[in-house]
Amino acid sequence: MPDVVVIGTGRVAAHLAQALQRSGITVRQLCGRSEKSTRVLAHRLNVPFTTDLTTIASDADFYLLAVSDDAIATVSRQLAGILPAEALLVHTSGATPLRAIGDHFQRAGIFYPLQTFSTDRPVDFTDLPICLSARRPEDLILLQKMARRISNRVATIDDRQRAELHLAAVFVNNFTNHLFGIAASILKAQDLSFELLIPLIRETVAKIETLPPESMQTGPALRGDRATISRHLELLQAYPPQYTDIYRVISNSINPDLDLKP
Amino acid sequence: MPDVVVIGTGRVAAHLAQALQRSGITVRQLCGRSEKSTRVLAHRLNVPFTTDLTTIASDADFYLLAVSDDAIATVSRQLAGILPAEALLVHTSGATPLRAIGDHFQRAGIFYPLQTFSTDRPVDFTDLPICLSARRPEDLILLQKMARRISNRVATIDDRQRAELHLAAVFVNNFTNHLFGIAASILKAQDLSFELLIPLIRETVAKIETLPPESMQTGPALRGDRATISRHLELLQAYPPQYTDIYRVISNSINPDLDLKP
Repeated sequence: MPDVVVIGTGRVAAHLAQALQRSGITVRQLCGRSEKSTRVLAHRLNVPFTTDLTTIASDADFYLLAVSDDAIATVSRQLAGILPAEALLVHTSGATPLRAIGDHFQRAGIFYPLQTFSTDRPVDFTDLPICLSARRPEDLILLQKMARRISNRVATIDDRQRAELHLAAVFVNNFTNHLFGIAASILKAQDLSFELLIPLIRETVAKIETLPPESMQTGPALRGDRATISRHLELLQAYPPQYTDIYRVISNSINPDLDLKP
Repeated sequence: MPDVVVIGTGRVAAHLAQALQRSGITVRQLCGRSEKSTRVLAHRLNVPFTTDLTTIASDADFYLLAVSDDAIATVSRQLAGILPAEALLVHTSGATPLRAIGDHFQRAGIFYPLQTFSTDRPVDFTDLPICLSARRPEDLILLQKMARRISNRVATIDDRQRAELHLAAVFVNNFTNHLFGIAASILKAQDLSFELLIPLIRETVAKIETLPPESMQTGPALRGDRATISRHLELLQAYPPQYTDIYRVISNSINPDLDLKP
C-alpha cells in the first residue's frame, strides 16, 4: 500500500486525507503553515505533523499538495530543494495546470476531487468524481489505484478538460449558490422563510438527474412572457442593481428574442 | 367534503387534480380547451369532462382555474356569463394578482403550489408549500382546509408577497436550470459527461438546507482570484457570448470589487 505526505490543512486536505486513511492508505505526515490548524488536523488524523517543510519525510510514495491554487507553484519550488527529484508531487486543484508543479519533479500528477467541501459536513466519496492527470503513465496507474479505493467514479482528463470542468463547476456550484442567496434576500425582505423554496430547489435538481437541463427549461423568459418579466423587473427596483443585471442577462440567454436592455 | 370543477389540462391542473382527489375531495368535472388533452386527463382522473364552458357544472363548491397566466382574466370573464355570481373562483398562478379574477365574482381566491411540475414525474405534495389568498375570510378558511389535506406547509400570503415569491422562484428554478444547461453544454464540448457534475450539484443544494446560502459562498469570484477568472473568461471565448455576460454579472454580484467590464 502506498503512503502519502499531505501538505495543506484546509478543507480539501482534511477530507481527502481522511478518505485516503479510511481506504487503508497511510498518511505518513501532515505538513502545514499554521501551527494551530496543522496540530488540530494532525490530531484528528492521528498522524505526525510539521510546519517546517525542511523536516518533511523524504521517502513517501507521493506528496499530496492540497494547498491554495496560487501556493502550488511556490510550495513545489520550495520542495525542489528538499525532496529528491524522483518524488511524486500531486496537486488537487481543478483550476491549475499540471505544469504548476515545476520541472524539477519529473513525476507530477493531479488528484482533483470534483466536489465542494465544507468544514463541518461529512463527504461521501463513493460516487464523487476524481479527475486524474499525471506526467508519467506509471504514476497515472498509481493514482488510479488509489482513487478507485475511495471512489467508483475515476476519470483521467487532460489540462484543458479539467479547466473546462472547473469552469462548469463554477456555474453549477458558486453561481447557483449565489442565485440561492439572491432568492433568500428577496424572501427575507418579504418576511418569508427561505424554507418555502427548498422543495422547488430539490425538484429542480432531481429533474436533471433524468433529463438534460435544456429540455427541462421553463419560466417566463422561455415563454417570452413580457408581462411577467416587466412585473419582475419592477419588483427588482427595490433590490441591489446587480439583481436586475443578472435577471436581464440570464433571461436574454434563455430567450435571445427578449433582448432586454440595461 | 367540498367538490371542485377543474379548468385546465396542463401540468398544474393534472397534478393538483390528482392530489385533491387523493385527499378525498371530489373533482366533479374537468373543463379544457383541447378535446384531446381534456379527454386524456379526464380519463386518468376518471371524471366527466367538457370542452364547452357553457356546459360547466354551475353548483360546485369552487372552480380551480389552472390555466396559463394570461388566460386567467379571459376565462373568468367568460365564466361571469355562465356561473352564478356567488361561485368561488380560484386561480393557481404565482405571478398573477387576485384581481385578475374580475369583480363579477366576489368570491375569488388563489391556490398557488410553489413547485415545478413535469408531465411524467410524480409530485410529493406532503412538504410542498401551498400559498393561499382569498377575498373573503370564510373562503380563505375553506382553501386552508383543502390545502392542509394535501400538504403540511400551507401559507397565507398577499399579492405582493406572492409576486416576490414567484420572482425568487424564477431565480432558484428557471435561472439555476439555465446555469445547469450552460455547464452541460461546456462539458459536452469537451466530450465529458454531465453526470460528473451531479454530486457537486447535489452537495450545493444539500448545504443550503442547513445554512443560509450567503454563508456557503465559495469560488474564484468571492476570493477575488483574478488569475482563475481570467483563464475562465478566456475559455468562455469559445462559447456563445451570453455565457461570458452571465459569468461577468454574477461574478461582479458575488464580489463588486472585481468590477469585470463587458
